[in-house]
Amino acid sequence: MAEVPTVDESAVNGVANLDLGRAARRGYPEAVYCEGKTPEQVRSIAEMIERAWGGSADPTADVPRTLFTRCSEEHAAALREILPDAAYFTDARLAVWPATPPEPSGGLVVIACAGTSDLPVAREAMLTAEYLGRRCELVVDVGVAGLHRVLARLDLLRSARVVVVVAGMDGALPSVVAGLVAAPVVAVPTSVGYGAAFQGVAPLLSMLNSCSPGIGVVNIDNGYGGGHLAAQIAALG
Amino acid sequence: MAEVPTVDESAVNGVANLDLGRAARRGYPEAVYCEGKTPEQVRSIAEMIERAWGGSADPTADVPRTLFTRCSEEHAAALREILPDAAYFTDARLAVWPATPPEPSGGLVVIACAGTSDLPVAREAMLTAEYLGRRCELVVDVGVAGLHRVLARLDLLRSARVVVVVAGMDGALPSVVAGLVAAPVVAVPTSVGYGAAFQGVAPLLSMLNSCSPGIGVVNIDNGYGGGHLAAQIAALG
Amino acid sequence: MAEVPTVDESAVNGVANLDLGRAARRGYPEAVYCEGKTPEQVRSIAEMIERAWGGSADPTADVPRTLFTRCSEEHAAALREILPDAAYFTDARLAVWPATPPEPSGGLVVIACAGTSDLPVAREAMLTAEYLGRRCELVVDVGVAGLHRVLARLDLLRSARVVVVVAGMDGALPSVVAGLVAAPVVAVPTSVGYGAAFQGVAPLLSMLNSCSPGIGVVNIDNGYGGGHLAAQIAALG
Amino acid sequence: MAEVPTVDESAVNGVANLDLGRAARRGYPEAVYCEGKTPEQVRSIAEMIERAWGGSADPTADVPRTLFTRCSEEHAAALREILPDAAYFTDARLAVWPATPPEPSGGLVVIACAGTSDLPVAREAMLTAEYLGRRCELVVDVGVAGLHRVLARLDLLRSARVVVVVAGMDGALPSVVAGLVAAPVVAVPTSVGYGAAFQGVAPLLSMLNSCSPGIGVVNIDNGYGGGHLAAQIAALG
Amino acid sequence: MAEVPTVDESAVNGVANLDLGRAARRGYPEAVYCEGKTPEQVRSIAEMIERAWGGSADPTADVPRTLFTRCSEEHAAALREILPDAAYFTDARLAVWPATPPEPSGGLVVIACAGTSDLPVAREAMLTAEYLGRRCELVVDVGVAGLHRVLARLDLLRSARVVVVVAGMDGALPSVVAGLVAAPVVAVPTSVGYGAAFQGVAPLLSMLNSCSPGIGVVNIDNGYGGGHLAAQIAALG
Amino acid sequence: MAEVPTVDESAVNGVANLDLGRAARRGYPEAVYCEGKTPEQVRSIAEMIERAWGGSADPTADVPRTLFTRCSEEHAAALREILPDAAYFTDARLAVWPATPPEPSGGLVVIACAGTSDLPVAREAMLTAEYLGRRCELVVDVGVAGLHRVLARLDLLRSARVVVVVAGMDGALPSVVAGLVAAPVVAVPTSVGYGAAFQGVAPLLSMLNSCSPGIGVVNIDNGYGGGHLAAQIAALG
Amino acid sequence: MAEVPTVDESAVNGVANLDLGRAARRGYPEAVYCEGKTPEQVRSIAEMIERAWGGSADPTADVPRTLFTRCSEEHAAALREILPDAAYFTDARLAVWPATPPEPSGGLVVIACAGTSDLPVAREAMLTAEYLGRRCELVVDVGVAGLHRVLARLDLLRSARVVVVVAGMDGALPSVVAGLVAAPVVAVPTSVGYGAAFQGVAPLLSMLNSCSPGIGVVNIDNGYGGGHLAAQIAALG
Amino acid sequence: MAEVPTVDESAVNGVANLDLGRAARRGYPEAVYCEGKTPEQVRSIAEMIERAWGGSADPTADVPRTLFTRCSEEHAAALREILPDAAYFTDARLAVWPATPPEPSGGLVVIACAGTSDLPVAREAMLTAEYLGRRCELVVDVGVAGLHRVLARLDLLRSARVVVVVAGMDGALPSVVAGLVAAPVVAVPTSVGYGAAFQGVAPLLSMLNSCSPGIGVVNIDNGYGGGHLAAQIAALG
Repeated sequence: MAEVPTVDESAVNGVANLDLGRAARRGYPEAVYCEGKTPEQVRSIAEMIERAWGGSADPTADVPRTLFTRCSEEHAAALREILPDAAYFTDARLAVWPATPPEPSGGLVVIACAGTSDLPVAREAMLTAEYLGRRCELVVDVGVAGLHRVLARLDLLRSARVVVVVAGMDGALPSVVAGLVAAPVVAVPTSVGYGAAFQGVAPLLSMLNSCSPGIGVVNIDNGYGGGHLAAQIAALG
Repeated sequence: MAEVPTVDESAVNGVANLDLGRAARRGYPEAVYCEGKTPEQVRSIAEMIERAWGGSADPTADVPRTLFTRCSEEHAAALREILPDAAYFTDARLAVWPATPPEPSGGLVVIACAGTSDLPVAREAMLTAEYLGRRCELVVDVGVAGLHRVLARLDLLRSARVVVVVAGMDGALPSVVAGLVAAPVVAVPTSVGYGAAFQGVAPLLSMLNSCSPGIGVVNIDNGYGGGHLAAQIAALG
Repeated sequence: MAEVPTVDESAVNGVANLDLGRAARRGYPEAVYCEGKTPEQVRSIAEMIERAWGGSADPTADVPRTLFTRCSEEHAAALREILPDAAYFTDARLAVWPATPPEPSGGLVVIACAGTSDLPVAREAMLTAEYLGRRCELVVDVGVAGLHRVLARLDLLRSARVVVVVAGMDGALPSVVAGLVAAPVVAVPTSVGYGAAFQGVAPLLSMLNSCSPGIGVVNIDNGYGGGHLAAQIAALG
Repeated sequence: MAEVPTVDESAVNGVANLDLGRAARRGYPEAVYCEGKTPEQVRSIAEMIERAWGGSADPTADVPRTLFTRCSEEHAAALREILPDAAYFTDARLAVWPATPPEPSGGLVVIACAGTSDLPVAREAMLTAEYLGRRCELVVDVGVAGLHRVLARLDLLRSARVVVVVAGMDGALPSVVAGLVAAPVVAVPTSVGYGAAFQGVAPLLSMLNSCSPGIGVVNIDNGYGGGHLAAQIAALG
Repeated sequence: MAEVPTVDESAVNGVANLDLGRAARRGYPEAVYCEGKTPEQVRSIAEMIERAWGGSADPTADVPRTLFTRCSEEHAAALREILPDAAYFTDARLAVWPATPPEPSGGLVVIACAGTSDLPVAREAMLTAEYLGRRCELVVDVGVAGLHRVLARLDLLRSARVVVVVAGMDGALPSVVAGLVAAPVVAVPTSVGYGAAFQGVAPLLSMLNSCSPGIGVVNIDNGYGGGHLAAQIAALG
Repeated sequence: MAEVPTVDESAVNGVANLDLGRAARRGYPEAVYCEGKTPEQVRSIAEMIERAWGGSADPTADVPRTLFTRCSEEHAAALREILPDAAYFTDARLAVWPATPPEPSGGLVVIACAGTSDLPVAREAMLTAEYLGRRCELVVDVGVAGLHRVLARLDLLRSARVVVVVAGMDGALPSVVAGLVAAPVVAVPTSVGYGAAFQGVAPLLSMLNSCSPGIGVVNIDNGYGGGHLAAQIAALG
Repeated sequence: MAEVPTVDESAVNGVANLDLGRAARRGYPEAVYCEGKTPEQVRSIAEMIERAWGGSADPTADVPRTLFTRCSEEHAAALREILPDAAYFTDARLAVWPATPPEPSGGLVVIACAGTSDLPVAREAMLTAEYLGRRCELVVDVGVAGLHRVLARLDLLRSARVVVVVAGMDGALPSVVAGLVAAPVVAVPTSVGYGAAFQGVAPLLSMLNSCSPGIGVVNIDNGYGGGHLAAQIAALG
Repeated sequence: MAEVPTVDESAVNGVANLDLGRAARRGYPEAVYCEGKTPEQVRSIAEMIERAWGGSADPTADVPRTLFTRCSEEHAAALREILPDAAYFTDARLAVWPATPPEPSGGLVVIACAGTSDLPVAREAMLTAEYLGRRCELVVDVGVAGLHRVLARLDLLRSARVVVVVAGMDGALPSVVAGLVAAPVVAVPTSVGYGAAFQGVAPLLSMLNSCSPGIGVVNIDNGYGGGHLAAQIAALG
């Protein structure tokens, strides 16, 4: 892997202070959280990344993939001024550079998503896990209102090293899935719903109080966090 | 049915003002909510009921059953000083006079309960529906962590005119049940759980946000309300 | 009724997984929740529905009505590219295909609405119940601040098999109505109000804590859920 | 009226700092909030009151009534060691010295209470208003589940200068009463109820969001505050 | 006063059901809450009002003032198509017809407002009280951060029959004012502030928990409710 | 492993419905949640377990360990009437039968605990993971107020396959630990603290919003859930 | 210092009531909170300030700096119509007149900020402290996910008289910093984050519950308040 | 000062891990938070402290005072088995060893307390600041309901280097005090109050939203934290 820049090299104009050593220290690179940053700040960070890793002989092999999460189209445009071949996934609001995922290793990550409206978060989780080096399968629209849908995918779910379950509204799917598989479940509540869903509080509480043990919960709409945790769990097959 | 006492006859010592006409008006008698009342106040109310209905020639046939809900042992003792043959169900904290349920009519009410700890609330729902004149079946400990348990009772669930589902923690069972049956579901969240269950808020929110339509929710731990609503739904149309 | 498509036929481009068997299983068809879906996704779902049911000889008689809830004008436009004769109700944000409601059966559903601002939710409830096969009557602007208004409609309310009460602000109307009728009440809190109404929390809590038993509560602004539950209650026993 | 002690005379052992001038300044005497005070502290305060007002020639005529609110039996016992003829009302947890209320003046205060369990708070409101110099009438157990009960008392309610409405659970009664009378309504939510009543939050929110204007709300279970405000409203203009 | 239209005359196209008898019954006319209504609905209501009261010989003397609260400019424009001489106060989002306030009677209402940002709510309170027939004085920007400001207005405050205190943020002003005057205080919390002010929850809670008795609280930003209650309190006894 | 009893064999007197197949299906046995159960119900469940597994020739090798969580001393006494050699850990409120943990397999689980007051929850997590077959190390009292304490244990933390971090109050420790290790972190918030800790809400929110990715959160005080999830993650070394 | 205008001179058109004596009384001038004010109102206030202080011979030496907080570009434009040389900082939404900070005195204020997205709030704190007369240093992007970043700045942090720590999300940084320095810490939670961050509630609670003593917390996003408090603490070196 | 024990010396039986270096590092010693610890654990910690510091020649001069906060009588008894001359303050639930406070240095700390019921928290703050080396004055029962009380102490308040204001209920006192003094204010909300005070949430929010800048808030009932912060602020006169 390319050499880690020093701390001084990591400073970005009094604006940011990238943790470029994280890939070496933790095995997974830092992600840049774009929300609340100006496009100019994202561009400055991109310049810094370009300086730090750009000179590598073979970037796709060695360079840690830097993820830009909650990245709007404006952020992505600013980023691509500096790193024009960065990948950008509109639905997941995720940008990545270098654009190619690493060769997959470890166990299978299955992402199951309760409804179509939860898909952007599920996609963010899947892409994150892929860019962190895992093989992924996505199962869509298998909410518990029609239980036969998730039961039809039981074989795939049981073949996973970890299952990421993404659900809004009642957040009931992780309880059902965790009761059926041996693998740990990462539950990602979403803000899908209205009224007493309270922007994701209802599924968050359901997941925290699941009657099925073996569920680790991440923040509402935090597909990135769910995919990251899953990648770590599945690091060993 | 026995004649309804006048409003003046309903006054209890400046303490209560029984709605004795409710059975005639709504078809279901008033219940006395005991929590927050002193045993003395419950005794005064019992005296008043005794005065109002006690002279009926054949009480078990005609007299509306008065339910005393959230009735502690102290309340029950005070009640039985006046109405010694009242029934008292310790687990459901429910007292009833006259003690025999009416002849059942209407459709079947099935009460399904997610865990053993939810049983007191489920029992309150079942007894309420029985005393309001419905035939009931109770299905215990069929939480979604072991889905085979509820699937094994599908025939019974599908034979009901209404299903009352009682659950704490993640409150996921009503969503699963409502997705499997044609009948309406009455969901009763319980305070079973701890931490982020927030004394029943978590299952309450799950139930309100169910991805399966056809669920009416009542207050946390409100077995009485759930049973009452179910009895009305399962009444002859 | 037309034959139910198989599960494989139900898959929509890795985007959705329609529960086309729900009408057969539950007696009521699936609804498509549009919020959070792109117009393109709604169009794909419409194509799938068109494929599944479009070939029926006499669609209006046999085909289950698919409801599209919380359907914006953009969603409706995308839907009508595929199913041009779908009905769309702007105020209730509801689209339906086929556009004609089924022949009514079962008991009468009365929808009572506390204020004019609650009307869109009340209309969603009424349309849902009608498309699920019930006869409906709507009573408007009978809030408890002028009690004579609801008392003037008592005969109609007492003729219902179920009353749907829609109210925001203090949410007091269901308590008053449930105290006057024998039928079960479905309470729909709305987000009408401001400040400490907390987008519908105030009426939601009022309804859950009603001093009148016999009320089943659905989510805030969930006219669809209220109408669905009412249709089930008012079905033939 | 007896002379107001100076500020230095008002100091109680570094423990309290009585606002003995309040009766002169506001027309209503200070109340001592006992919760969180030790019995010893209440005794010290009583000694101070005894010193300040005790020497008056004719205490019942001149001396402001000091109320001790949320006063437990232990507090009352400590108080009576110093002021043995203080009145103590167990249900309302209220002690008063001197024990006789002043001659009533101003308009009529009617206190209406939704259920028997709300009675202690209603009694605290009534006693407070009486000790602040108003004539009061108490109407018990007129909750909206049996609307005929409150309608039967309409004449009395309409004769009031101000109506204090005390209710827990759904807190619907103030909306109904305020819609029927010209007088202002003081609404006192109580912690009666359970589950989603959240110790009085549900009725508090109902009252704040009443669809009937003309309601001023006080804290949950704050019978003292409700009675005080009512006494001020019903004072001679 | 002009004759009250019958209930049938009060129906507005299945859209509203005006409580035209409220002025006769309560002494104060109904207000039309515009939020959540379409401009078309407001226009229909205006037509109905025009029909009901328009034929009076001398409208300014006899006809109850109908207030249109939370009335946007669009609502006001629709209203004025029918009632072109209605008054409209942009800052207070209030429209009134007929435009002239009645001759003042009763006691003085003083409205005190903590900061300039609270002014729109204070103005709504003042205008409401004026149109309900009271004389009003407005005191601006006297928050407790500079205590000398409110102390400088003590004479005016003490001359009031009722003081309306409007405050956001810490909501401390009503406690201070109520401690200084004999009159009852109507406290109106506002949504002025940010962060942990939670859109007015912070001042609402302060006011409900005031250490000074004699405060009745209305909903957040509810200047109308505060002015209405004040007008009732300051009416002739 | 011993044969799994049939569903009918799993029924416990209409009281419970043990999921005895869970060990076969998920690899981990069911746990009995004792809170809200009577000692009699726990005894009945113990009898059923005794019947199901008691006849095994060599229980310690084959029989799944049944955990009894949130098990009071009364529950434990009832349990031991039937299974006298069950282990009971007072601090963790955990009982287990058979009493010996299985031979450890998989990777190392390190449990780090912020303060001494968090110890009972940390112990519950450790014991759970041990009884589910993992090797564990416990690190005590390494809260971030004295950062040197956690830094001193970095080698141990980095040798873990998964780290369980148990913390109350500010819940800051998981963020710090997750930033230092490659392994996934299971965060267990505790109810240690007071005031604005809101019985564990503060650390729960901190953990859900950690700026360090790679954290899965379980319910407040849910040491069992944390240990279970960790055991699943560390199943493969 | 210039003479303080009298109270009458401080009145602004019945719109505001500037506390011009605050600099004399408290040592720090009043700030004008612009949110919720119209640009016209801000202009009126500027005119008043111009009248009060404008005639000073040497404004930069004597005149208290008036801060305009949460000042939008529209507000700033209106302000500059009257005071054209006022400073305006877009990122911090802060305007100041006169534009030059006073000569620094007292101890050093260090502002540490967890992430780049927290920078606007950190800048508001720093500018406020500078305009109140302190010397400041800003440390950016030192969140606990990469602990080496804050440890690298320990010398600077330890040289401060007070440290202002600005953080969103988990709000863990103040706990870590306070554990490392002798100086008091002012913690400013920000609304950076999403989902269960609840617009800053999560870091607010973390900071209030810090396991490190010596932290005073201000409102969410209240950079002004944090800077003001820090300036007061560091008034003496 | 006595030599700081090594980390290994600080370990307490796998139960605690004292931060004995804190006095050297931060200038203030660690406090032992007793809530949630068993008396046995407190005894073990006392033994460790005795070992670490007990051999000092002149303990009162050199040894950092260890505070034991939220220390029940049981905890105190266990502590005194090992350190019999520790001081214990029942009202403040605080134990300290060595028992004598250090010689005061720095500026004056004034603690102002709104009501008698807030006194235990105020005392905890005062004792903490005294044991951390500051001179303190306590001002009792100066709530804003009788404003003259706090105005009478203005000279003392203005002589302080820092003012700690302790208040429950409406939490209005810090706003008033901060508006009157130049010194920074440390605000300590208390759980005094009931109903919508929500165990201290109401004053906490008031204090966070104060219209007077210059207030740092600590946790509800956190007298220790308030005193600690004040001691740090007043470290320099």
